[in-house]
Amino acid sequence: MATADRRTQVTSKVSEAVQNGYSPVIVVSAIGRSGDPYATDTFLGMVKEICPDLPKRELDLLMSCGEVISGAILVSTLNSLGFEAILLTGGQAGIITDKEFGDARIVRVEPGAILEQLAKGKVVIVAGFQGMTEDGQITTLGRGGSDTTASAIGVALEAEAIDIYTDVEGIMTADPRIVEDARILDIVTYNEICQMAYQGAKVIHPRAVEIAMQRNIPLRIKSTFSDAPGTLVTNMHPERGVGTDITTDRIITGIAHTPNVTQLRVLTGDIQDKLLTDKRIFKAMALADISVDFISVQPEAVLYTVRDEVAPKAIKILQNMGFEAGVVPSCAKVSIVGAGIAGVPGVMADMVEALSDAAVTILQSADSHTTIWVLVHKEDMVTAVQTLHQKFQLGI
Amino acid sequence: MATADRRTQVTSKVSEAVQNGYSPVIVVSAIGRSGDPYATDTFLGMVKEICPDLPKRELDLLMSCGEVISGAILVSTLNSLGFEAILLTGGQAGIITDKEFGDARIVRVEPGAILEQLAKGKVVIVAGFQGMTEDGQITTLGRGGSDTTASAIGVALEAEAIDIYTDVEGIMTADPRIVEDARILDIVTYNEICQMAYQGAKVIHPRAVEIAMQRNIPLRIKSTFSDAPGTLVTNMHPERGVGTDITTDRIITGIAHTPNVTQLRVLTGDIQDKLLTDKRIFKAMALADISVDFISVQPEAVLYTVRDEVAPKAIKILQNMGFEAGVVPSCAKVSIVGAGIAGVPGVMADMVEALSDAAVTILQSADSHTTIWVLVHKEDMVTAVQTLHQKFQLGI
Repeated sequence: MATADRRTQVTSKVSEAVQNGYSPVIVVSAIGRSGDPYATDTFLGMVKEICPDLPKRELDLLMSCGEVISGAILVSTLNSLGFEAILLTGGQAGIITDKEFGDARIVRVEPGAILEQLAKGKVVIVAGFQGMTEDGQITTLGRGGSDTTASAIGVALEAEAIDIYTDVEGIMTADPRIVEDARILDIVTYNEICQMAYQGAKVIHPRAVEIAMQRNIPLRIKSTFSDAPGTLVTNMHPERGVGTDITTDRIITGIAHTPNVTQLRVLTGDIQDKLLTDKRIFKAMALADISVDFISVQPEAVLYTVRDEVAPKAIKILQNMGFEAGVVPSCAKVSIVGAGIAGVPGVMADMVEALSDAAVTILQSADSHTTIWVLVHKEDMVTAVQTLHQKFQLGI
Repeated sequence: MATADRRTQVTSKVSEAVQNGYSPVIVVSAIGRSGDPYATDTFLGMVKEICPDLPKRELDLLMSCGEVISGAILVSTLNSLGFEAILLTGGQAGIITDKEFGDARIVRVEPGAILEQLAKGKVVIVAGFQGMTEDGQITTLGRGGSDTTASAIGVALEAEAIDIYTDVEGIMTADPRIVEDARILDIVTYNEICQMAYQGAKVIHPRAVEIAMQRNIPLRIKSTFSDAPGTLVTNMHPERGVGTDITTDRIITGIAHTPNVTQLRVLTGDIQDKLLTDKRIFKAMALADISVDFISVQPEAVLYTVRDEVAPKAIKILQNMGFEAGVVPSCAKVSIVGAGIAGVPGVMADMVEALSDAAVTILQSADSHTTIWVLVHKEDMVTAVQTLHQKFQLGI
């Protein structure tokens, strides 16, 4: 909504939808709200500067204005083109959340108000990233933001599809800044896109995907700036063939990576109640608000990774508990994701062989039915991603 | 809330109230919201520029953000000084309005949420100028704005007093730009301040005064920038003596003026059904959204005034109805206001004599029990105000 050019791009999408007989509901983000949910346009940013210690409840009230402002601009633009548009706040649109200010979860959607406006032929604009508690408090959704709003509304309305407009043309097989022949995927499963998002791809938040998945509403990841079809996110569905096509056509769908993690190896020794000790360690991390990943419980040790910036804090906590940690700083997690991994033997072997041939040291590995992760030194990350992209022929 | 200096001035008022054992509820306006209810800080102003044709409903949603922003800044400032403050939107504060977007009226206040927060020892900040309809639509109050919010909440809470902070030190006997020895009034009645406001004094909107008057909650008009006691607005109350003092001490309280009005004299002639014709004229004005004032129905004519800028439109309407209007453009209405006028004979005579001595032509006059108005040529307005201020010894 920031420039006239972009407004034209948005309105042309709306116009197209209406011409094709759809009743579109559009969820808007604040101008400037990108990765950081609290980053927004200069003005609200300036207000936040004046208010460094604003309580979360009031910060949410303030930030919710960002989407109202965008929404008002879109209503005005659409009306000037002859559409009848109406703006609903998250609360007015029936987005009911819990009371976790700054990171609220949608507990349900009451779509009555949206349906009423659609029935009147209105184009409905909903302020994203926000909701309302049962007792009328304004909340923001934190992670996932406006995408989550869109998914929740899509599910509540049993929409034909949820289109997520981004600044990229779709989900890619790997980060194109690293892999030259990375390409846009036509179709992925909900699980695949969730795994890729968890593993570092930032196009859409898993929370938004999980909501759409609950009712099998297709997601389409598209670019605001082009007419490319983008990536269709849909469920595996044996009867329909779509899912079957995905899993039989390919084993690996994409490669994700997360740099800047530290591996911690805690020697717990051959003590009694080892399981209890392990639990104590993870409880201590959780209490300190440190996210842990890549957990591997071994007979005389426990391994896990934390983000580089919280590693000193984690090490300190372990010391206070009487543990010395073996530390491998500056690692990267490289993941291959594919709904087809589950049924195909030897994928892990292929992966290990390829990385070994490329002289990449594997510090740790793990796997689930749709993902295999390896931990490597950060300086090997690019080689690892490129090698695996080629090995699994993702560029073709 | 715009500058650190002003924030300090506001917080020192809050701090003083708390130290004196009060539980203050503070109603905030948007930064830059002054005479024009839709004028606000540069940012929202800029957004409004992009949206010239925003529907009233969405304009209200957008404008309501102005007070939320101010309120968030005040919460942050108060919290940093050790107070526990909480911000409520108009709707959260229980301000229930009708559905007149842009000029909503408060239909009732549900003070539960405010009382709950006060009971917790919180300093309650309420976003002024806004409310919510029964079905959750955000409205703005239009005329009276945040003062009206303050009055309505003061009444709902049965507050000891409602302090209105302005950029002047109180209500004056006349406009100090015109009358050199105009002085601040210590005390006025609700009716007096309403009359003065209707007649052109702009310190507080009559709507806010009328609400406070319903329950006899005293209003105190004060300056944000000084510790002067300001003007106390209270009701005449024979038993308490306050009202009695007002009416026996003085006959005239203040002088107000409204320039730029046009007098229209419509010759209806000695027709049958004259009353019906007069009604038709005023109905036509009302349908055209033209406010009329100073109506005088005479045997063969009807006189009234309209604002200069709508005079051509009014004349056109009269012509279409077959009436030729006698037009006196560029007039001014000068009013003397005083709760004591009612019981004292000869005030009108004194007024006429004083204006006649000063060579001011009276084009028309009217009176109620608390006000006498005269219509004069605009070039006589300053002389008239000065003459009457002196005649009734208001500077002493």
